[in-house]
Amino acid sequence: MSGEMQKIVLASRPVGAPVDENFRLETAPMPTPEEGEVLIKVHYMSLDPYMRGRMDDAKSYAAPVPVGGTMEGSGVGEVVATNSDKFAVGDMALGMFGWASHALAKANELRKLDKTMPVTPALGVLGMPGFTGWYGLNKLGRPKAGETLVVAAATGPVGSMVGQLAKLAGLRVIGIAGGPEKCRIATETFGFDACLDHRAYEDARSLRKDLADLCPDGVDIYFENVGGKVLEAVWPLLNTFARVPVCGMISWYNAGALGGNATSDGLTGPGLWRSILVKQMSVNGYIISNHFDLLPEFLGDVLPKVLSGEVKYLEDVAEGLENAPRAFMEMLGGGNTGKQIVKLI
Amino acid sequence: MSGEMQKIVLASRPVGAPVDENFRLETAPMPTPEEGEVLIKVHYMSLDPYMRGRMDDAKSYAAPVPVGGTMEGSGVGEVVATNSDKFAVGDMALGMFGWASHALAKANELRKLDKTMPVTPALGVLGMPGFTGWYGLNKLGRPKAGETLVVAAATGPVGSMVGQLAKLAGLRVIGIAGGPEKCRIATETFGFDACLDHRAYEDARSLRKDLADLCPDGVDIYFENVGGKVLEAVWPLLNTFARVPVCGMISWYNAGALGGNATSDGLTGPGLWRSILVKQMSVNGYIISNHFDLLPEFLGDVLPKVLSGEVKYLEDVAEGLENAPRAFMEMLGGGNTGKQIVKLI
Repeated sequence: MSGEMQKIVLASRPVGAPVDENFRLETAPMPTPEEGEVLIKVHYMSLDPYMRGRMDDAKSYAAPVPVGGTMEGSGVGEVVATNSDKFAVGDMALGMFGWASHALAKANELRKLDKTMPVTPALGVLGMPGFTGWYGLNKLGRPKAGETLVVAAATGPVGSMVGQLAKLAGLRVIGIAGGPEKCRIATETFGFDACLDHRAYEDARSLRKDLADLCPDGVDIYFENVGGKVLEAVWPLLNTFARVPVCGMISWYNAGALGGNATSDGLTGPGLWRSILVKQMSVNGYIISNHFDLLPEFLGDVLPKVLSGEVKYLEDVAEGLENAPRAFMEMLGGGNTGKQIVKLI
Repeated sequence: MSGEMQKIVLASRPVGAPVDENFRLETAPMPTPEEGEVLIKVHYMSLDPYMRGRMDDAKSYAAPVPVGGTMEGSGVGEVVATNSDKFAVGDMALGMFGWASHALAKANELRKLDKTMPVTPALGVLGMPGFTGWYGLNKLGRPKAGETLVVAAATGPVGSMVGQLAKLAGLRVIGIAGGPEKCRIATETFGFDACLDHRAYEDARSLRKDLADLCPDGVDIYFENVGGKVLEAVWPLLNTFARVPVCGMISWYNAGALGGNATSDGLTGPGLWRSILVKQMSVNGYIISNHFDLLPEFLGDVLPKVLSGEVKYLEDVAEGLENAPRAFMEMLGGGNTGKQIVKLI
């Protein structure tokens, strides 16, 4: 393959919310696959909140992206050159291609996709975000019919999966989302019992008041994917034996390694521990990449529900690699409604 | 039965650490068992940290003792009058008899004890504290050979059970206790690999330094039974996938419903949640009274180990009901070495 490829690199580390200057579009010579590799032309790339963490030079569960390095991320694309007998030119594959127009990939690190099906769900409802929601809800949340669940980012790919599966399991589901339009989608499209617009509340206390009205029997599962004001609002409403799967804290991602200036009224030291003890809570952090052994179980459960329409999904599509940074920054601010992807073809 | 009985009532609610004036010794007419009841002459009563919580008028997992009410607690005693065909005079039983020389009890709420065996273990190593350690370690701690466990109050009935069972399971076990004598007992009697005297450290940071030296591979299970300085010291040493069973926080019990002035450097809001997420921790509060369905499994596992001497236990025996408040107050300050009981006969 001759010609050039494009990629977005980390130009500098952000302080707080990322800005344009933290990203740079570069071109590079088109690479050639070595033995066992294929060259991918990326069709769609995924934008996910966890990528914000990779931009920091902090100790975390994965190494940071080096300054000057290509932003990491998964995508779906077409094999355009192959040096592996596992893939033919024209095959579609899912892999970690980064924010780039093309990528070299080891054949044994790719998942081949069915070309007769839409490929973008592999990045969302049937990919890492959907799997994150499914795992956290079922393996850590242990839902029981009649219970009440609260989940934020309700229309996003994780929150909408959690809420829909919980509804199918017979729970009362209250969503929290940013703006009246997302709340409408949470109830009308995704079937949540109710959804509160966190932007309409000045502080955690006022949000808690309305949430308490919507949860007359308290909250049994709080699926933690945002942190901040929502966590503060929900915490005192948790019932005895409450379960709190923790998969993310997007509201704190721009707060400097989750530290410092973020406040957390009622969630400090002894008070928090007292709740965990007295209410016999189960608080479990998890990172989905450590649970890929359960991917077949997830797909076996959820794929039929997606095909039947029982589980719906929404995608927000930005166009063009050069617009990926802007779409990413907007997503961190809650600008997206569904799964944020970038179309590169 | 004629005559009088003695009991210790809650004279007033403590502010901070309990003092003599919070307790009062009273006499009452000897009661007579109604249908289905027995009258117990208490031989030994148990003193446990959870009783401090019952003295507060705070929302908790159990109703507070009313002012003027008899202090609650379990004990072992002899049936001296019976109005039930389940118990004969002379039988020994375990039950919630309170801080009292005698108690009426419903026959179906008692556990009959084998008179040919020592009865005090039913209050400690084979009772609620031992069961608390066993449940938390096995069901929430999920120990694996080669891992490292840290437990405080190492010579107490919970900590010594946790440590000994963990050693039998092939873990490296580091204890923390108050004073050099308890540390000696933790290693020599209970077989811990090492034990640190928390009183020898000015703050969590200095304790953490020595603990880190003793845990070169980090800490996989922190069995939380004290809170405060020990929790602060251990927290940053926890490994990815660490498990934290939470059964008590005795160091905070006198701090006003665990709130207020207790500090917790590094354990506030976002930082703590970041740890839970990034390290994929499992933090589980539990109260053993909700798990009595597993008591047979516990006894089936541990009773043979106690009989064989694989699991050892220590008891601290105070003499006389009138000395129960003093023994209780000393226990909250760490004055006991093993399981604290009061001998009433």
